[in-house]
Amino acid sequence: MPITAYTIEALTRIRQSAPLIHNITNFVVMNSSANILLAMGASPVMAHCRAEVAEMTSLAQALVLNIGTLDDYWLEAMICAGQRANSLGIPVILDPVGAGATRFRTEAVRKIMAQCAITVLRGNCSEIFSLIASDIKTKGVDTTLALTAEMVKEAGKMALDQGCVLAISGPEDCITDGSQVFRVKNGHPIMTRVTGSGCGLTAVTGAFCAVAGKDMARATAAAFGFYGLCGDLAVQTSDRPGTFQVAFLDQLFLTGAEEITKYLKVSEI
Amino acid sequence: MPITAYTIEALTRIRQSAPLIHNITNFVVMNSSANILLAMGASPVMAHCRAEVAEMTSLAQALVLNIGTLDDYWLEAMICAGQRANSLGIPVILDPVGAGATRFRTEAVRKIMAQCAITVLRGNCSEIFSLIASDIKTKGVDTTLALTAEMVKEAGKMALDQGCVLAISGPEDCITDGSQVFRVKNGHPIMTRVTGSGCGLTAVTGAFCAVAGKDMARATAAAFGFYGLCGDLAVQTSDRPGTFQVAFLDQLFLTGAEEITKYLKVSEI
Amino acid sequence: MPITAYTIEALTRIRQSAPLIHNITNFVVMNSSANILLAMGASPVMAHCRAEVAEMTSLAQALVLNIGTLDDYWLEAMICAGQRANSLGIPVILDPVGAGATRFRTEAVRKIMAQCAITVLRGNCSEIFSLIASDIKTKGVDTTLALTAEMVKEAGKMALDQGCVLAISGPEDCITDGSQVFRVKNGHPIMTRVTGSGCGLTAVTGAFCAVAGKDMARATAAAFGFYGLCGDLAVQTSDRPGTFQVAFLDQLFLTGAEEITKYLKVSEI
Repeated sequence: MPITAYTIEALTRIRQSAPLIHNITNFVVMNSSANILLAMGASPVMAHCRAEVAEMTSLAQALVLNIGTLDDYWLEAMICAGQRANSLGIPVILDPVGAGATRFRTEAVRKIMAQCAITVLRGNCSEIFSLIASDIKTKGVDTTLALTAEMVKEAGKMALDQGCVLAISGPEDCITDGSQVFRVKNGHPIMTRVTGSGCGLTAVTGAFCAVAGKDMARATAAAFGFYGLCGDLAVQTSDRPGTFQVAFLDQLFLTGAEEITKYLKVSEI
Repeated sequence: MPITAYTIEALTRIRQSAPLIHNITNFVVMNSSANILLAMGASPVMAHCRAEVAEMTSLAQALVLNIGTLDDYWLEAMICAGQRANSLGIPVILDPVGAGATRFRTEAVRKIMAQCAITVLRGNCSEIFSLIASDIKTKGVDTTLALTAEMVKEAGKMALDQGCVLAISGPEDCITDGSQVFRVKNGHPIMTRVTGSGCGLTAVTGAFCAVAGKDMARATAAAFGFYGLCGDLAVQTSDRPGTFQVAFLDQLFLTGAEEITKYLKVSEI
Repeated sequence: MPITAYTIEALTRIRQSAPLIHNITNFVVMNSSANILLAMGASPVMAHCRAEVAEMTSLAQALVLNIGTLDDYWLEAMICAGQRANSLGIPVILDPVGAGATRFRTEAVRKIMAQCAITVLRGNCSEIFSLIASDIKTKGVDTTLALTAEMVKEAGKMALDQGCVLAISGPEDCITDGSQVFRVKNGHPIMTRVTGSGCGLTAVTGAFCAVAGKDMARATAAAFGFYGLCGDLAVQTSDRPGTFQVAFLDQLFLTGAEEITKYLKVSEI
């Protein structure tokens, strides 16, 4: 199905079924990710206690893992939830926040990926490439390393190797599963001035994967297109970070078939 | 005192004395609950460390417990704080977020209620009834099970049995202590699209109970009426989740005797 | 350099270099502090895991410690990060939220200050003085004890004794390193009705110290003036807590040389 029609259908399905998205995420974005999921029509739940984490995952339609403020306890909870998701066939989205910045984060992502099958790995360029090539050093969570053609090829190799979708955020996003490549031009630089923009996108990717059929790269591209498009529309209300983030939540709630048909900028290569 | 006059008087008392509300709550809503309490005129504090939790409770005029992102450490802190509150006669409000969704949550609520006297139990229909009838299964935190007359009767029985107020949120809220029943028609569905709306109501219930005399059911009904009314007024500014939540904080700050007199929809049955 | 020119230069440097500010802060304000830093042009990172905390600090240009929801694990992480910052010459800003309210908090601050050199101690009057005179008892985090001339003198003594800057928030702020005293008249009472206003100021102080030369008292005064000024400008949009906090984020993004030249109210005594 072409990506525009696919995006509309997936969004409709989210709004009809309100899939439960289980988030084990960082303290900074728990509130914003929950609001983003609620605004767009999904149903968020946050739970990290080892005594309940697998049971909660089994109620969910997608699992979102985010290592932004990780420690050992949370890492174990993520692996436990990821394994339950795997055994039930629930998609698992992983956001390797700050991978490459510290050894602990890089190793934590490797550990999660060694013990759980990840459906989509969603990060910025330096986070993703810190997991491939060890000679790229990230500075916290907001680096904007540019994506070269060679990098897209590398990402495709890693996607095939890991059996997952690689979703790389940047001025222009790139999503690949090794055989397909999607490029997304929606989105606006002001989003990088609002904390949790990337983490919110990871959560929204969870919502799209929750209602997807088998093509998780397409579901991820739809999530990126929809999310960036809501940013494009919100920036028409304001390009200042306070009022922008309020308008963005409104747009996640309002944006539907009409806006997607007119403004989606996702291309399949 | 009739509920309208009572609500006005309680709100005035909150704004004059700024009661300290000790919250041991979940990570998702810590910021929003603090802002909600500040906006309406109360004074929030968050503290969960076992080394200080009882001492902090002893400084407060109400204790709010919320199990939204519970783990074992936090559960112990809640019980410790609850027991101190009991020994000092400070009201304890419990929000059983997600009770019924996982065994851990249901058992945690039972454990808290076995070891602490709860003044008000505030949840949605499925959360509350998961604690009464074990055959109701909740889906995360946002289920909207409709409240039947039989359920109100059951709730009254549980209230008498536990010696607490049961406050059940829904399209129409119901508050009962077993002898009195209040119904609240204020509030708007958009509130369910903003994370922490229910948790914020629990915190506001804490503020009203902090200044109440002995009638905690009436204080809870006043809290529900005031909170829902602020939602009703905010939705006149916007029915979109981003701008709504901003307008809602404004209304918690602005709403006073005039709006309560005109628009409060709380009935005593 | 006069404080107005200094503030403009420091802000310009922040916006050019986007210094990484490592925050080990409380759960209530993680989101708001990150947004405040991003809006003004700095780059926030939150990390508290003992396995990475020192490594993260070594990537940062300032370390911000905030004990608002402290427990033993986080206290150890703060000390570990603080010691690394000391060994690298990175400024350390400490916010003793609720010091004086519980013994645990007061002792935690003393422990941090005994084991780490603090560059700036930023709190309200009762928090700061609970660390000097043990006969002042704070009520949570929002007490507004007035600052007397004698207190300023006492603060100066403590600053010299500890070798740090004391930055005391209040209706009129006071910053001193024992030899210099700055008074700041920018800021508006509505800021006390938004949670995390003080914690956000602590984070912004980190950003100014990150780009400062040696005069940390001047950098702190610049931070206070800039922050309060953004509040003054935001209140022109709205004096209600919801819309105010949105406008405040916008102002942190917008405010520059022109507004600082016109409206900064910082005096050097």
